[in-house]
Amino acid sequence: MIKKEFTRAYGLNEIALVPSTTTIDPELVDISVEIAGLKMEIPMFASAMDSVVNPETAALISKHGGIGVLNLEGVQTRYDNPDEILKKIASVSKEKYVELMQSIYQQNEVKEELILKRIEEIKQKGGVVAVSSTPQNAELYGPLCAKAGADLFVVQSTVVSTQFKTISTKKPLNLKAFCSKMTIPVLVGNASTNEVTMDLMSTGIQGIFIGIGPGAACTTRGVLGIGVPMATAIVDAAAARNSYYQVSGNYVPIIADGGIVNSGDICKALACGADAVMIGSPLAKSFEAPGNGFHWGMATPNSVLPRGARIEVGSIASLQEILIGPSKSDDGSQNISGAIKLALATLGVETIKQLHDVEVVIAPSLLTEGKIYQKAQSLGMYK
Amino acid sequence: MIKKEFTRAYGLNEIALVPSTTTIDPELVDISVEIAGLKMEIPMFASAMDSVVNPETAALISKHGGIGVLNLEGVQTRYDNPDEILKKIASVSKEKYVELMQSIYQQNEVKEELILKRIEEIKQKGGVVAVSSTPQNAELYGPLCAKAGADLFVVQSTVVSTQFKTISTKKPLNLKAFCSKMTIPVLVGNASTNEVTMDLMSTGIQGIFIGIGPGAACTTRGVLGIGVPMATAIVDAAAARNSYYQVSGNYVPIIADGGIVNSGDICKALACGADAVMIGSPLAKSFEAPGNGFHWGMATPNSVLPRGARIEVGSIASLQEILIGPSKSDDGSQNISGAIKLALATLGVETIKQLHDVEVVIAPSLLTEGKIYQKAQSLGMYK
Amino acid sequence: MIKKEFTRAYGLNEIALVPSTTTIDPELVDISVEIAGLKMEIPMFASAMDSVVNPETAALISKHGGIGVLNLEGVQTRYDNPDEILKKIASVSKEKYVELMQSIYQQNEVKEELILKRIEEIKQKGGVVAVSSTPQNAELYGPLCAKAGADLFVVQSTVVSTQFKTISTKKPLNLKAFCSKMTIPVLVGNASTNEVTMDLMSTGIQGIFIGIGPGAACTTRGVLGIGVPMATAIVDAAAARNSYYQVSGNYVPIIADGGIVNSGDICKALACGADAVMIGSPLAKSFEAPGNGFHWGMATPNSVLPRGARIEVGSIASLQEILIGPSKSDDGSQNISGAIKLALATLGVETIKQLHDVEVVIAPSLLTEGKIYQKAQSLGMYK
Amino acid sequence: MIKKEFTRAYGLNEIALVPSTTTIDPELVDISVEIAGLKMEIPMFASAMDSVVNPETAALISKHGGIGVLNLEGVQTRYDNPDEILKKIASVSKEKYVELMQSIYQQNEVKEELILKRIEEIKQKGGVVAVSSTPQNAELYGPLCAKAGADLFVVQSTVVSTQFKTISTKKPLNLKAFCSKMTIPVLVGNASTNEVTMDLMSTGIQGIFIGIGPGAACTTRGVLGIGVPMATAIVDAAAARNSYYQVSGNYVPIIADGGIVNSGDICKALACGADAVMIGSPLAKSFEAPGNGFHWGMATPNSVLPRGARIEVGSIASLQEILIGPSKSDDGSQNISGAIKLALATLGVETIKQLHDVEVVIAPSLLTEGKIYQKAQSLGMYK
Repeated sequence: MIKKEFTRAYGLNEIALVPSTTTIDPELVDISVEIAGLKMEIPMFASAMDSVVNPETAALISKHGGIGVLNLEGVQTRYDNPDEILKKIASVSKEKYVELMQSIYQQNEVKEELILKRIEEIKQKGGVVAVSSTPQNAELYGPLCAKAGADLFVVQSTVVSTQFKTISTKKPLNLKAFCSKMTIPVLVGNASTNEVTMDLMSTGIQGIFIGIGPGAACTTRGVLGIGVPMATAIVDAAAARNSYYQVSGNYVPIIADGGIVNSGDICKALACGADAVMIGSPLAKSFEAPGNGFHWGMATPNSVLPRGARIEVGSIASLQEILIGPSKSDDGSQNISGAIKLALATLGVETIKQLHDVEVVIAPSLLTEGKIYQKAQSLGMYK
Repeated sequence: MIKKEFTRAYGLNEIALVPSTTTIDPELVDISVEIAGLKMEIPMFASAMDSVVNPETAALISKHGGIGVLNLEGVQTRYDNPDEILKKIASVSKEKYVELMQSIYQQNEVKEELILKRIEEIKQKGGVVAVSSTPQNAELYGPLCAKAGADLFVVQSTVVSTQFKTISTKKPLNLKAFCSKMTIPVLVGNASTNEVTMDLMSTGIQGIFIGIGPGAACTTRGVLGIGVPMATAIVDAAAARNSYYQVSGNYVPIIADGGIVNSGDICKALACGADAVMIGSPLAKSFEAPGNGFHWGMATPNSVLPRGARIEVGSIASLQEILIGPSKSDDGSQNISGAIKLALATLGVETIKQLHDVEVVIAPSLLTEGKIYQKAQSLGMYK
Repeated sequence: MIKKEFTRAYGLNEIALVPSTTTIDPELVDISVEIAGLKMEIPMFASAMDSVVNPETAALISKHGGIGVLNLEGVQTRYDNPDEILKKIASVSKEKYVELMQSIYQQNEVKEELILKRIEEIKQKGGVVAVSSTPQNAELYGPLCAKAGADLFVVQSTVVSTQFKTISTKKPLNLKAFCSKMTIPVLVGNASTNEVTMDLMSTGIQGIFIGIGPGAACTTRGVLGIGVPMATAIVDAAAARNSYYQVSGNYVPIIADGGIVNSGDICKALACGADAVMIGSPLAKSFEAPGNGFHWGMATPNSVLPRGARIEVGSIASLQEILIGPSKSDDGSQNISGAIKLALATLGVETIKQLHDVEVVIAPSLLTEGKIYQKAQSLGMYK
Repeated sequence: MIKKEFTRAYGLNEIALVPSTTTIDPELVDISVEIAGLKMEIPMFASAMDSVVNPETAALISKHGGIGVLNLEGVQTRYDNPDEILKKIASVSKEKYVELMQSIYQQNEVKEELILKRIEEIKQKGGVVAVSSTPQNAELYGPLCAKAGADLFVVQSTVVSTQFKTISTKKPLNLKAFCSKMTIPVLVGNASTNEVTMDLMSTGIQGIFIGIGPGAACTTRGVLGIGVPMATAIVDAAAARNSYYQVSGNYVPIIADGGIVNSGDICKALACGADAVMIGSPLAKSFEAPGNGFHWGMATPNSVLPRGARIEVGSIASLQEILIGPSKSDDGSQNISGAIKLALATLGVETIKQLHDVEVVIAPSLLTEGKIYQKAQSLGMYK
């Protein structure tokens, strides 16, 4: 009798990094990466979410060495004056939030002239132009954006596949054909397994986003039961990337996307094998964030089956303080790049690539460790 | 020296589903199942609990493609006007709840004329008539209901066995004899292991409910120490069903019953091998639910050893919104059938049967994952 | 390089019992046990704690088929009017509790005439007389109590050993000599491992208490770091008991003592291999309990290193309702013997000995299972 | 395809100690250790943190048999009147805490005359003089302190390594050269792995602090993702110490530092193989502690990437009560040395070295065990 078997997967909050016999001068550390031909001084993408990236923050993030990805199907390309809409989203009650989002999306379609306008705005501010669409609209917006001068095109959906079955006349996106047609680099996501990552790498894409389910504003696991804990997802994808590189000589970077809460999580994601990370909620906390202290998932507006919660993250510091410091906090929410550098120095490695080889242990979650243990005690939970 | 050994079992909240290389057009997905000769458009039974199923909701659930099972031994068949009683149950204080339940059951016995009346009501409203009794009363009510036009007879107790030892003159229910005598299909529950499932399948029953202990209003584990976490229980039962099918050609569906909180849990239960699910608390939350925002276990009224708690679940949406949408929420509580369809599409499978082969990982509970982690942080638990 | 290794041990809240193919008529179930020649209708000892056992409750517990053990070194044998002292303990503030306990013990020594008086009181009320002393005082009180008509003598300390090293003139208790001298049965505790249990069984004792650290009012693990989770402790001791029985023909019962919260825990302890249980906090909740709604550990009064917390358990029902029902609650706190009987019937076994062979699974703690999961959801912890 | 693998590591709150067949007279127990030629009556160092050690507490701790380590780079050596500054730190709001710390450190540099003054103060009070600097300043302060009569020099940073890469002209501390030059014993930390411990032992140091990440006021894991759960870290380091001793005849003691909350944790750390412990928060709770009821990490003042939180620990008892009793509490916070002695007696061992061989089990965290389980029940979490 054959029984279905489960394998254990690990989340970032279940692991910790182990120092070696060597430490290194932080001045020797280089946390830059090159992805899709673009040099990133800090290995961070800002999520293609309306609460995180608008033309202003896209430019600011570029300035500090990261890349902000503008969502082509959110409020920025549906409304002339998105700030007004964003304020509404931040001020609506929790109960009416989903309905408001549904109506905001139903009232206005995406307009091509607004896509062009936003791209132009980012360029004028001196930012790297990275834009993101769903696979359904990639054929439509991809060439348009490339022509308008975008530097990077991201095709992103909850779960990306390399095969899509349909009987309707609408054809799924042929990634290989799309990439060869595009004149700018294409990045794709999200994947979570070895096999999908392997298949995607041969399509001509120049980066893969890894992570299904764990994001702060993501409800995929609760609604669909689908998800892969991040540490295991990254390790699997990294193994695929390395194998593919060995046989093809082509190194396709992987970007961990989802469930990253603080600088410690970023260090762990990189140590699991990611080349960079994509973060949402840590940047939604910036003073400049278009979410005005709120953060929400982009799957929300679906009129029949909304997903993606809105969470209040607050506004804690400037984007500059969050990305490159100085920090006024001790919780891993500010000077993220400084924390990554210090982690590498402490772990005795000079580059992100070397960080991939650092020892990782499965460690009891912080929720049951040290500080929490003490917290529980102070609450009298041991009496 | 031989020591007793324990094996690890898993709950639904400990697992997650893993996408493959394929996704599929949701239009291609078919989540219908055939159980006991009845085509169900959505693979969901409503629990035989007074807080969930009355003639009105039974008919409504049928209309949307599921099946509501009426409890033959609850208030519906003891009281002419059960609504009055149900209101009392919802309004009593927590302290007086158990005593009220005990008196409600002691005051009125089950009346055959009320059984016939409820069946007639469901028929007149156009619903599938599924009714449920304990094994003790199956011989009495089974033929009565079949004659009255019921479509399905469910024999359900906390734990079903295939052997029952007694020295009293009362004889246990002989399932094989009962099934051969019954002119309508018989479903039986609840089982939780491979062996019991295997034994039950040869009795002529046409479906088995799987799940002991984990229900929201169930206190079996606290009171008796008995329980089998659902993911493992389903996997074990599914292995028995598949083995039995191989040797007999007879496919006896299994229905996961208990501990299912949201649409994600349903997807996981189906992926573990269930053909359908039976849910209580998610439907007790409907505006139409007879529980008036409360949900309680049917074992409660036992006058000597009551079990089954009453919990306040609230009233969140219409039955239609909960079952087939559209949803105004993002937590997996509404448009459950839409969520199942989207899960199948995302996982690249067309049917529930194919879903049985999807990869499952053991993943850290949501309680310690992503959102909770962030929640804990926002509560300052890391300081 | 040899590294110290750890083995995994399990607590009662980490396991659950699995039904088999058989169920049984509750009328066929017999949960009685014979320990030290005494027939117990229900397999339960009441802990030798001042909050649980006084002459009145000792007699009442006997009447219902269990055995209450009177602590010979608590307030009952130090004060003429212990009720006054017990009221003080229940009414002192949490901050002043330890100091009050220290002074109560320092002011009055144990008096032999009070020992004799309490034994007489239990006898007059018709109860089984079981009394308990520390190993240090066993030589002194043992013969005294036997002569006064006690039925059972318990020698109990936090951790019992079979070897005691000392250079002082005071000699450790020689259990073998003590047992052969005593004219009434001797029970000893607490042990937690296979080896100690094995050694103890050859001393002539007629029962061993198993359990170190997990009690509700016990702080051994926090203060000393010492403890063995109960499920594993019982399994280990049961293996020793069975081995010893095979070679000697002498069956020495083991009694699980500590960390038992509700009837489900008792069923699990018995299924792990215990012949009976000793419970404190579940009985401290009775209206008749001398603790007046409070429960505290007996190690508390140590003047230099107090251990054992006082916890408020409330008063929920009569001793009769707690022990043999009927129950007005659904949480496993009342009709404990009824719950044990129903568990055996549900698991298809007729006796406690047969219960030892029931299948046990490691199951996610209730804290992260079903109800809690739902609770967390209702608290919005998934948003 | 090679996938990165994780190994499981354990925290102190995940383990428990198991009694053997022997217990021992507490009078026979000797918990003293000799480290760096100094006899310590109790195996405890007080952390080199401003909230714990000033000249007064250093002398008091010596008096009771431990050693308090004075931080050479905190407020004691920057300010003539540190008490004033310490009061400010205790009274600032949580929001302004990090900024205050940054300004306190920026305003005043460490002054050599204050180092000499503090050393003199400790000597005059009769205390053992142990002082601590970062590796960067060891060359500068080491000889100065030795000359001033210090007994012990500690070189401590978050993570110590045996190799340091740099291209700048500043040279890393050469531990071997430093030790041979120093006329007083040198202790070094913090390490967390077998390999580093092994490498460090050949440098001439006379003790190694083990522990990275788990301290109560430490945010290394959250900010950098770095950490090794203590039980595993100690076991690994102890294996290295034992191996090194076998080949060299040189026994280099290891001191567990971080994540130790109560006396039970200390017993567990010693049983894992530590020769002594270093504790912060348990002593910051003393009436005499310079932190005035608060405790904070020494990494905090970093102006670019502060780490180390301030937590309110309260003031519960005198240093004497905490270290040697008598205790007025039952939670492992007072009479720590008495608790260690009782643990050894209960476990049947006479010395810390023998304690290294005691059996350890992986046990469910107290957070999900016994008392908490009951607590959760009392909160109605099972309903």
